[in-house]
Amino acid sequence: MKALVFDAYGTLFDVFSVTSLCEDLFPGHGKQLAEMWRTKQLEYSWLRSLMGRYRDFWAMTEDALVYSANRLKLDLTVTKRGQLMASYLDLAAFPDVKPGLEELKRIGIRLAILSNGEPKMLKAAVQSAGIHELIDAIFSVDTVKIFKPSPRVYNQLPDDLKIDKAEIGFVSSNNWDVNGAGSAGLTTFWIQRSSLDIPEELGYPPTHLVTAITDLRPLISQ
Amino acid sequence: MKALVFDAYGTLFDVFSVTSLCEDLFPGHGKQLAEMWRTKQLEYSWLRSLMGRYRDFWAMTEDALVYSANRLKLDLTVTKRGQLMASYLDLAAFPDVKPGLEELKRIGIRLAILSNGEPKMLKAAVQSAGIHELIDAIFSVDTVKIFKPSPRVYNQLPDDLKIDKAEIGFVSSNNWDVNGAGSAGLTTFWIQRSSLDIPEELGYPPTHLVTAITDLRPLISQ
Repeated sequence: MKALVFDAYGTLFDVFSVTSLCEDLFPGHGKQLAEMWRTKQLEYSWLRSLMGRYRDFWAMTEDALVYSANRLKLDLTVTKRGQLMASYLDLAAFPDVKPGLEELKRIGIRLAILSNGEPKMLKAAVQSAGIHELIDAIFSVDTVKIFKPSPRVYNQLPDDLKIDKAEIGFVSSNNWDVNGAGSAGLTTFWIQRSSLDIPEELGYPPTHLVTAITDLRPLISQ
Repeated sequence: MKALVFDAYGTLFDVFSVTSLCEDLFPGHGKQLAEMWRTKQLEYSWLRSLMGRYRDFWAMTEDALVYSANRLKLDLTVTKRGQLMASYLDLAAFPDVKPGLEELKRIGIRLAILSNGEPKMLKAAVQSAGIHELIDAIFSVDTVKIFKPSPRVYNQLPDDLKIDKAEIGFVSSNNWDVNGAGSAGLTTFWIQRSSLDIPEELGYPPTHLVTAITDLRPLISQ
């Protein structure tokens, strides 16, 4: 394994770190809004990809927020909308991210990100989480204009990294993303962040299962 | 308008008519199981389409059931699994379906179905709902091996019906399906079956909005 490529949202960055702001702005509805927002963000990425109507992840994240506020009958003023969108630029990193990446870096593994995120969003999130010096490259679906789990997304990695497919591992806590990468022929590592996350029935289960990024190093050096 | 093409699940057939059986088999969990089952069924159709890993809707509906039972920690025995799958073959039709289709038939509109469903499932559902004599043709995504909202699904209609695209209307209560058909250039009718169903932010809103199939005839004869 020469390189590990990480999913960003849900894997490195906690998309539910927006929940407290959601709750501050809409007391009693924070959790529901944060969950629906995330669900719709993913749904829209799949639907638009299938329709052949790509729209960048930033704009689509805002579409998902607008839908969710409408659905929950919340008054999403221009100010609240701006605040919530801005919160997506400094999502909290999970506590295992920095130490886990540092361990891998130390043994000479190249570290990259492959994300649905629009390049500017990713750059901001990586900076804000203080992991910019650990990440060698950031790849976005924006170059191929279709979202995960299209094989076109994962298939760009060997060329982009100039590393053989067999020497690239893909890491995600989104099990459907793991299935997509596995279907595209990559070795996969599923970070099961909660016991409530169970494997999807999509036919391409993870090569390896761990519960934190700090569990990866022993698997790699074997 | 020479032909109206209807979505099946959620539009003609009530996918939540399985809820009572779910509740009988898993007391206290019926609603939750029925809802998760439907959500996963759709998610898997989008994910597999994007992965380029088509699997017929019957098998995929079973995958979604297995996932949902696992997620909710319900003991899905072979017998219960068989009973629940069988219930998908005789879903209840909504009460406006038969009278609505009869009115349209009377003014000479050709009536067809375009569904994710696997052909045998669709045939069984149409028979069971007693509308087989009203439906002139049943089209399934199974011929193109990709699910809605891929444009390839909707684009087969003019050839299959031998009718110009401009004279075909597409009817669905799934707003994302309406967006897909609209994006593919069809005139669309959204059946808003509940005020909780709100439009998706996908860029291709319905040409017409009605609340029941019995509302279609006045729009067509205009």
